[in-house]
Amino acid sequence: MDTKSHNGIEHSNTNISKHTKMTNNTVSPITNGQQSCEENTIPAFPWFAMDIGGTLVKLVYFEPLDLNPEEVELEGEILMNIRHYLTSNRAYGEDGFRDHALELNNVRLGGRRGNLHFIRFPTSKMSNFIDLCISKHLHTLTFKVFATGGGAYKFEHDAVERLKLSWCKCDELETLIKGLSYLSKLNPNECFYYEEPENNENSNKIPFKFNIRNPFLLVNIGSGISILHVESETSYRRITGTSIGGATFLGLCCLLTGCSGYEEAIKLASEGDSTTVDKLVKDIYGGDYERFGLPGHIVACSFGHMNLPEKREQASKADLARATLVTVLNNIGSISMMCARTENVDRILFSGSFLRINDLSMRILAYAMDYWSEGKIKAIFLEHEGYFSAVGCLGEYIMDENDLTDISQS
Amino acid sequence: MDTKSHNGIEHSNTNISKHTKMTNNTVSPITNGQQSCEENTIPAFPWFAMDIGGTLVKLVYFEPLDLNPEEVELEGEILMNIRHYLTSNRAYGEDGFRDHALELNNVRLGGRRGNLHFIRFPTSKMSNFIDLCISKHLHTLTFKVFATGGGAYKFEHDAVERLKLSWCKCDELETLIKGLSYLSKLNPNECFYYEEPENNENSNKIPFKFNIRNPFLLVNIGSGISILHVESETSYRRITGTSIGGATFLGLCCLLTGCSGYEEAIKLASEGDSTTVDKLVKDIYGGDYERFGLPGHIVACSFGHMNLPEKREQASKADLARATLVTVLNNIGSISMMCARTENVDRILFSGSFLRINDLSMRILAYAMDYWSEGKIKAIFLEHEGYFSAVGCLGEYIMDENDLTDISQS
Repeated sequence: MDTKSHNGIEHSNTNISKHTKMTNNTVSPITNGQQSCEENTIPAFPWFAMDIGGTLVKLVYFEPLDLNPEEVELEGEILMNIRHYLTSNRAYGEDGFRDHALELNNVRLGGRRGNLHFIRFPTSKMSNFIDLCISKHLHTLTFKVFATGGGAYKFEHDAVERLKLSWCKCDELETLIKGLSYLSKLNPNECFYYEEPENNENSNKIPFKFNIRNPFLLVNIGSGISILHVESETSYRRITGTSIGGATFLGLCCLLTGCSGYEEAIKLASEGDSTTVDKLVKDIYGGDYERFGLPGHIVACSFGHMNLPEKREQASKADLARATLVTVLNNIGSISMMCARTENVDRILFSGSFLRINDLSMRILAYAMDYWSEGKIKAIFLEHEGYFSAVGCLGEYIMDENDLTDISQS
Repeated sequence: MDTKSHNGIEHSNTNISKHTKMTNNTVSPITNGQQSCEENTIPAFPWFAMDIGGTLVKLVYFEPLDLNPEEVELEGEILMNIRHYLTSNRAYGEDGFRDHALELNNVRLGGRRGNLHFIRFPTSKMSNFIDLCISKHLHTLTFKVFATGGGAYKFEHDAVERLKLSWCKCDELETLIKGLSYLSKLNPNECFYYEEPENNENSNKIPFKFNIRNPFLLVNIGSGISILHVESETSYRRITGTSIGGATFLGLCCLLTGCSGYEEAIKLASEGDSTTVDKLVKDIYGGDYERFGLPGHIVACSFGHMNLPEKREQASKADLARATLVTVLNNIGSISMMCARTENVDRILFSGSFLRINDLSMRILAYAMDYWSEGKIKAIFLEHEGYFSAVGCLGEYIMDENDLTDISQS
């Protein structure tokens, strides 16, 4: 219910252009193994950034490809092992995963060339992650971790205490926009829309040429939802938010269907029929509610049939999962549409980890935007869904002003 | 997701001032037992109006107190029996209830004096209701029923076919505002607010002097939600709506707790603690999210803890019911607040059957409006919660322009 806002905030430490030679990664007795966040230099490897959200940690790792012989020698065994561990596996224990399909190869960052890796694990496993870092001897290195999301605050003490590192915190919304700006320039296929979202067989994903300088609405669907009006990389305003987000979908699905995780919940939803669960306009009116242009097929009350025992018996687990998905999406769509009209913008970008492996949700949102705006407002989606804040956080400290110029010429 | 709107619609048949003598209530062979809705005269008794919603039928019955001996004689046995049946019982079978506390005595309507009775039953029992009318021989009388809500369309054919009556349909939002205007003038205690909504022991209900000519937001919480910007009795606009309403609360509660009805669901919710179910800002940030003025105690993700088995085990049925209530209310509050700001109004009236026996919800809404608007926007509630459309529907055909003038002098 928050509508407090801020405008045009600019970070003093963006556009860092001074490069320093990589330092070696041994514990410095002077700093007790820590580097300052304020240092106006490109930091030593390893380059990690984490967005620690309500449900998921999104971790971005830059794997350098241009190490010179001197750097290789200085890198040392620990760092080499970590690099090897991260880049040669796709899963880390039971809960950590590398999103291989999202990997960006041979990109430039902070004046260096390398591969950008995208890794995720549940926030509830943060403590296990710190244990893993210790088992890999990360706490014996001198390095910085760039952190954003709520967990950057919540886990700061624990991480600094146990890993003896510099913990550089950034605001998640500033980094979200910075990450969006960087990745949308870097990756020509980053932004896309659906030509025929209602077509289950072939909805046609079309690349969208995105320009951050044309005002747009950014709807970030994580555990909860934030809606921003963005006018440029440095001028934006949080309009509103809602607590009915990705975590609501997953939490309710676990309760209603007994499913154990997001993948199962999404699969169930894709197989279900929400009209056995929801009351539609036609269930109440017998047809359309013409006076307000509400067609009979739209939802009048979410879960509106479920007060009746005989209807509960008829609804399958898949139906309940689908209804949960539709409830969450309709609410997001409705609030987004209202904001877009109030702010007078015609593009809505949807980001956030809720859209991972979630073509169904993106098509439902795209169809709703198209239908209710009569084609005037376009829903745009992003390949790197929930990773923008983590990327922006890395960029906050590491990005070089020539990074994008050089990349676009490469 | 509808924002299509209309402005300043006026009904051609409001302010009917011609009175006719009551006709007798026997079947007329000429009209096949039906009276026309278009007739510009005060109709014969009985005076019934029904708002047939997604979940509940709200029925208003006017019991005349000023029948003269000739009228008593003409009234006949059937009508007298119906009058006696309705006014001497408080429950009708298992599902019908008369809200005795809401009864308005010795009021003037259509130039007559009488008592206004408020009766409700589930929409799923409409067919049983028609059976009951037949068993009471209502289908042998010549009379009109005034109907609004979606069911006025859905059940029209069945009602007309089986009861041989005139079925006069009105739009539910027009009648909602008409009913609000009538009842707020008639009943000095109709509108109220909470002085200290956060005070569980004594929140202090204070009567509010309502003037329909000062623009306000009207949030009708039925099975679903409609939000109107009202400038006068005849000038209003539907701004938006959401499918997450009263039926969502009840449907989800039935699924999550196994409760069997609204009363049980509300009771459970009043005993529960939603913080075992929802993820709060402090659960993610470790404290407040100061950047956006979000205090640690507010909900960041509804049902956000429920993806973890150990958290599901800790959450009681009451906790789940409370979380469902808070989820629905937060969403309504947030959307209402956004609309109030966009429309630049400082009063939000909440109506609808969801607020019946629901002091808890009203206080939660009142507190949220007060907190997020920093005391600038006032939440106002109404004694006759969900009955305004039914009253307005009756008034549409029966109200006399002197009804309120006379009442205010009585």
